[in-house]
Amino acid sequence: MDTNLHELTDQIAAEIQQTLSQVSDSDALTLREALLSGVRIFIAGRGRSGLQMKGAAMRLMHLGLQIYVIGDTTTPAISNGDLLLIGSGSGSTASLVQYAKKAKSLGAEIALITTDATSVIAKMSKYVLAIPAPTPKVKKKRDFTSIQPMGSLFEQCLGILLDSIILQCMGMSNKSSDEMFSLHANLE
Amino acid sequence: MDTNLHELTDQIAAEIQQTLSQVSDSDALTLREALLSGVRIFIAGRGRSGLQMKGAAMRLMHLGLQIYVIGDTTTPAISNGDLLLIGSGSGSTASLVQYAKKAKSLGAEIALITTDATSVIAKMSKYVLAIPAPTPKVKKKRDFTSIQPMGSLFEQCLGILLDSIILQCMGMSNKSSDEMFSLHANLE
Amino acid sequence: MDTNLHELTDQIAAEIQQTLSQVSDSDALTLREALLSGVRIFIAGRGRSGLQMKGAAMRLMHLGLQIYVIGDTTTPAISNGDLLLIGSGSGSTASLVQYAKKAKSLGAEIALITTDATSVIAKMSKYVLAIPAPTPKVKKKRDFTSIQPMGSLFEQCLGILLDSIILQCMGMSNKSSDEMFSLHANLE
Amino acid sequence: MDTNLHELTDQIAAEIQQTLSQVSDSDALTLREALLSGVRIFIAGRGRSGLQMKGAAMRLMHLGLQIYVIGDTTTPAISNGDLLLIGSGSGSTASLVQYAKKAKSLGAEIALITTDATSVIAKMSKYVLAIPAPTPKVKKKRDFTSIQPMGSLFEQCLGILLDSIILQCMGMSNKSSDEMFSLHANLE
Repeated sequence: MDTNLHELTDQIAAEIQQTLSQVSDSDALTLREALLSGVRIFIAGRGRSGLQMKGAAMRLMHLGLQIYVIGDTTTPAISNGDLLLIGSGSGSTASLVQYAKKAKSLGAEIALITTDATSVIAKMSKYVLAIPAPTPKVKKKRDFTSIQPMGSLFEQCLGILLDSIILQCMGMSNKSSDEMFSLHANLE
Repeated sequence: MDTNLHELTDQIAAEIQQTLSQVSDSDALTLREALLSGVRIFIAGRGRSGLQMKGAAMRLMHLGLQIYVIGDTTTPAISNGDLLLIGSGSGSTASLVQYAKKAKSLGAEIALITTDATSVIAKMSKYVLAIPAPTPKVKKKRDFTSIQPMGSLFEQCLGILLDSIILQCMGMSNKSSDEMFSLHANLE
Repeated sequence: MDTNLHELTDQIAAEIQQTLSQVSDSDALTLREALLSGVRIFIAGRGRSGLQMKGAAMRLMHLGLQIYVIGDTTTPAISNGDLLLIGSGSGSTASLVQYAKKAKSLGAEIALITTDATSVIAKMSKYVLAIPAPTPKVKKKRDFTSIQPMGSLFEQCLGILLDSIILQCMGMSNKSSDEMFSLHANLE
Repeated sequence: MDTNLHELTDQIAAEIQQTLSQVSDSDALTLREALLSGVRIFIAGRGRSGLQMKGAAMRLMHLGLQIYVIGDTTTPAISNGDLLLIGSGSGSTASLVQYAKKAKSLGAEIALITTDATSVIAKMSKYVLAIPAPTPKVKKKRDFTSIQPMGSLFEQCLGILLDSIILQCMGMSNKSSDEMFSLHANLE
């Protein structure tokens, strides 16, 4: 049996609205202040979460911040005083755990956006922003379920939450969409 | 002045819901049937739209389809009978226009998801799915505006629309989230 | 003081020739047979070694083999019977060690090209191909030194060794350059 | 019939040495001075040439230069006074031609490393460095042939030529391998 497209898009929009309404405004504020504090920001994530993190990295670059994506060609060494911003549904993806450990040992701070505020990476993080979406590993723990497979709801919320925080950053730093667009990659 | 986080996330969720409610259900159905028709599918996009296309490519691979992303290391030559699925807000990104021309000249069909159903690539496409979101270039034409910068609303809608279509594909091909997860990259 | 360009290119070509002349022909043969045995091949590497591995992945795809690069968008799960081919100067890059452990636990075999045949990953590998080039970590151990920084000589040798093995594969599978070119990505 | 590995590696090293000995030292010097002139450098290439360009981008970053790779997540807009360094065997890859045109129209200078100094991109370039290797398109024109398929010899020479120029840059800017290594990505 086939489901009408708009039932699905309405339902997903509602899942996103409901999930993000449970994110702590004050935790988001703290993260935002860290992003705007002038430190170098390194971005990491894997799979579809990693793609959402890259999308945020582009906008943060448009804001004029110093942004590097782990795995990009010219990303330099992370060091003391830098911020490593990780997006991970489980908060325990093996290579991300490793990056967090290494970064922390070098004096960088960790910020994590995750479904699991008690995860391995969360415990190493100075900033944790919890998105209470079900993921493959925590699906049974939530008091609601998503109609979507695997971590899709988390990934969508991750992107939109970061876009919301970026909107707030635009307000705080008085940047217009046009100013940001002038930094946008023009060879593509 | 600072805006409350949940006002923003509510507003963005509403923008997404409203925009996607205007996407043609029958155009989506036609695209979905093309995706499930057994052809090889090549995926292309740039910038943040390109990232959303890659996210969809992952899930389409999880469904067991034969998916290649333009620019990935081992993507082979496109040829007669293949489908090139492009996501482009403007429908006229220079390198994507070029890919569409080349692919068409080789006998492949083009499918486009865009804000502009009259764009250069749209005119070359067999399948066009229009998302009526404002983008930098068409911002003035729409009867509503987004609070978000540049093409953010289009990019969010692109990802969620494709996730909705993928949910429908799961229904049609009787795939569960668990089956799909078994194909998910496990070295990351 | 400035050095003449051709002195440098001659010297580097000599370093490469000298280093590769010490690679075991029989170890290369064994690896080649594994590559052509019909298994699915997953490719991994980091930094400049990773780039050389990707270059080899392209040619192996041109040969018609089933090749996936770890980190590419549509790379599926690795499983029992697959081959994970790693290029790593040190043989101990943290995330690669992790991939090797995980792949082995799932029943895949590991093949490693490295400067250090006693490294952590080498110990987990069924196939080890040693390139006796100096790298940052083993620089002092070699009886000759390179004029080049960091792992440059290893990375160059890695690419050329794989290209040589691919030439041998072409001979064994009777593939011509033209046939291979027909599989070459044509949207770029 | 099987060919001995060391015959092949010797032959390839000889092809590389011979080809690079024909590169103009003074053209290389001019390019090197452009790289060290303090401008922002944008790097572009496709396929295996693109991978060699990325390898060079890493080392140029290690030298402390301001390097961006076209297609990387946080690469900003190119503008007046910047340098676009392209590696392209044919000098006429469609999307690279487009980048060159756009960059030039914005006031950036183009530098090209290619087999064909009369190609479309060469004609737009301020700096051209010719590597006289055969490529699929110019194979018949050369007075020698390579035993290797497609553009392999060009791609190898491209990487090693750039590594040689980087060695010269290290001399000119008094950088040691250890200093460079301190900038090397440490999360990988």
